[in-house]
Amino acid sequence: MNGKLEWLRNKISLHNMQGMLVANPINIKYLTGLEAEGTLLLGRKENFFLTDARYIEEVQSTLTINDGIIVNNISNLTYDDYENFFLFCENVGFEENYVTYAMYKKYLERYKIHNLEETEYLIEKGRMIKDTEEITNIEKACYITDECFKHICAYIKIGMTEKQIANEIEKFFKSNGAEELAFETIVASGSNSSKPHAVPTDKKIEAGEPITIDMGCQYNGYCSDMTRTIFAGYVPVEIKKIYNLVLKNQTQTLKEMKDGASIKLISRMVENDFKINGYELVHALGHGVGLEVHEMPYITGRNDNGILKENMVVTNEPGIYLPGIFGVRIEDTVLITKSGCINLTKSDKNYIVVDKT
Amino acid sequence: MNGKLEWLRNKISLHNMQGMLVANPINIKYLTGLEAEGTLLLGRKENFFLTDARYIEEVQSTLTINDGIIVNNISNLTYDDYENFFLFCENVGFEENYVTYAMYKKYLERYKIHNLEETEYLIEKGRMIKDTEEITNIEKACYITDECFKHICAYIKIGMTEKQIANEIEKFFKSNGAEELAFETIVASGSNSSKPHAVPTDKKIEAGEPITIDMGCQYNGYCSDMTRTIFAGYVPVEIKKIYNLVLKNQTQTLKEMKDGASIKLISRMVENDFKINGYELVHALGHGVGLEVHEMPYITGRNDNGILKENMVVTNEPGIYLPGIFGVRIEDTVLITKSGCINLTKSDKNYIVVDKT
Repeated sequence: MNGKLEWLRNKISLHNMQGMLVANPINIKYLTGLEAEGTLLLGRKENFFLTDARYIEEVQSTLTINDGIIVNNISNLTYDDYENFFLFCENVGFEENYVTYAMYKKYLERYKIHNLEETEYLIEKGRMIKDTEEITNIEKACYITDECFKHICAYIKIGMTEKQIANEIEKFFKSNGAEELAFETIVASGSNSSKPHAVPTDKKIEAGEPITIDMGCQYNGYCSDMTRTIFAGYVPVEIKKIYNLVLKNQTQTLKEMKDGASIKLISRMVENDFKINGYELVHALGHGVGLEVHEMPYITGRNDNGILKENMVVTNEPGIYLPGIFGVRIEDTVLITKSGCINLTKSDKNYIVVDKT
Repeated sequence: MNGKLEWLRNKISLHNMQGMLVANPINIKYLTGLEAEGTLLLGRKENFFLTDARYIEEVQSTLTINDGIIVNNISNLTYDDYENFFLFCENVGFEENYVTYAMYKKYLERYKIHNLEETEYLIEKGRMIKDTEEITNIEKACYITDECFKHICAYIKIGMTEKQIANEIEKFFKSNGAEELAFETIVASGSNSSKPHAVPTDKKIEAGEPITIDMGCQYNGYCSDMTRTIFAGYVPVEIKKIYNLVLKNQTQTLKEMKDGASIKLISRMVENDFKINGYELVHALGHGVGLEVHEMPYITGRNDNGILKENMVVTNEPGIYLPGIFGVRIEDTVLITKSGCINLTKSDKNYIVVDKT
């Protein structure tokens, strides 16, 4: 059995569960490497992957004997087969934050499980701590992101549209080793930058506008996430105060992030400094990064008991937004270590001016 | 109140529900045009949209007074506010196929609803029948897809990689009016084409190989979906029998698809013809297309009571796959009419040879 499945078996048995149903495809990928649609079952002794004809070929060619997973085509399964998967299991875990209410009812009926038990993000919590291979993949995704940022700063000219720039970012990612975007790229210029979740439009870049670029890619399935707010032609004076305030908080947060640090305290520090200056932190200060671009831990003031731990990978992304006017966000992906944190995205954070006039 | 919300209010009241919680973002977009994260509440008399600070600005600028939706920032809501939303509502509907088990429990606790009732894809079933505006959007997405196919047939050269071709398709879509891909493009050549859900690889196209291209884009949020299996250099003799069998069934299905036709019978017709010839239909014959690329109705032999209706938009996509050897799939997006169906994707389906040798 592979190491991650063994880890999960130990975990559930500590919680007095003899089996678990895993349905979240990201968790399945994490535990098995499989990307096929299906359900992973940890039965009392054996592991099963239930899938359909579309994926059987792929699954068989991905798994090895060492994975210790028996593959079943659901179209061959009988009612009895379903009942046998969790035979002699008193408590069976399920992902209550992924499984729909309808599916929960179906599980009860189909598998005849005595007690279907909530597992409270058990696997997602395990995913927070990255192993060496995972870190290497994220580092690679961040490296491609830095290279892309270099390319895009040379590429942007006043008069280009936001969409054009977003397309160029995507093109660069895909032709430089990334298999996919980690999320839809944000390129938001001028007053668009005041929307934290802006979508690239056909609006043209004008001189003196800030451009917030939030981008990331995937390498071997692992994500990167970086934001810079840059300037077209020149840096408008009125934005400097806010830019400096965001940057000061981003830099200070980097100093605070280390093994053992309280997530709540770090977030509150930024929230308070913004408040003192008359602004508000309207979104989370950061989030974990891995197979998903947004995953645990969430770096917010509401994360009461969260502690940063060695080998977590998280973002640090304070931002200030003046509705209808402009916004500034600066974000890095960082690796938490015993003594501090290491920037995995390394692009410059001083005023960056593109197509200088 | 907009027409779609009025339609939903009538529907739920027919089922003796006085309110409904809508959480599925696609359903929210369908009903309101909003693309922001949040929850739509149909209370006893008023409609509410609960969202957070990140989206307030966008939401306010999208909605008009005619929408009849009151916007709330969740960070300002009290326990009492939540309890008041469904005051005097005996039964409140929810989307049991979208809402997680954890969220279901939270709803009960937060809104103090007497009876949270399953709505059995009520909104999704409404979405099956498209109005004129929706059809126009899908037509446009299909038009761009046909144009892209023309472009890509001229573009492909032996020696190019699958990824290169997939990237070119994406580039064409984005620079020709589509806002996004409808799904990750499939470009599967040679033995890769035997996987119905293949992902483009760095494998180079060789002469005599079939290439299955499954592609679609979005226009105003509405999707297109088309597949062609084309040939590099020449058509290998051994594939012709299977290609002709798939094409014959695709053409026959087009003739059967019309208002009033039984989905089960149409699917069984293809399943049986494949079986007689020694093959198997391993996936659905088709699916609805709209805001989602895969939506109701699902065209399969297991859809017992499904009937095609005027103004549904569905795909027709028979395929045969010989594991490790090759596969053929031919797919169109079609509009169901009173008397038949209209192909919205119109690309040629006879043997198409690219980079002819």
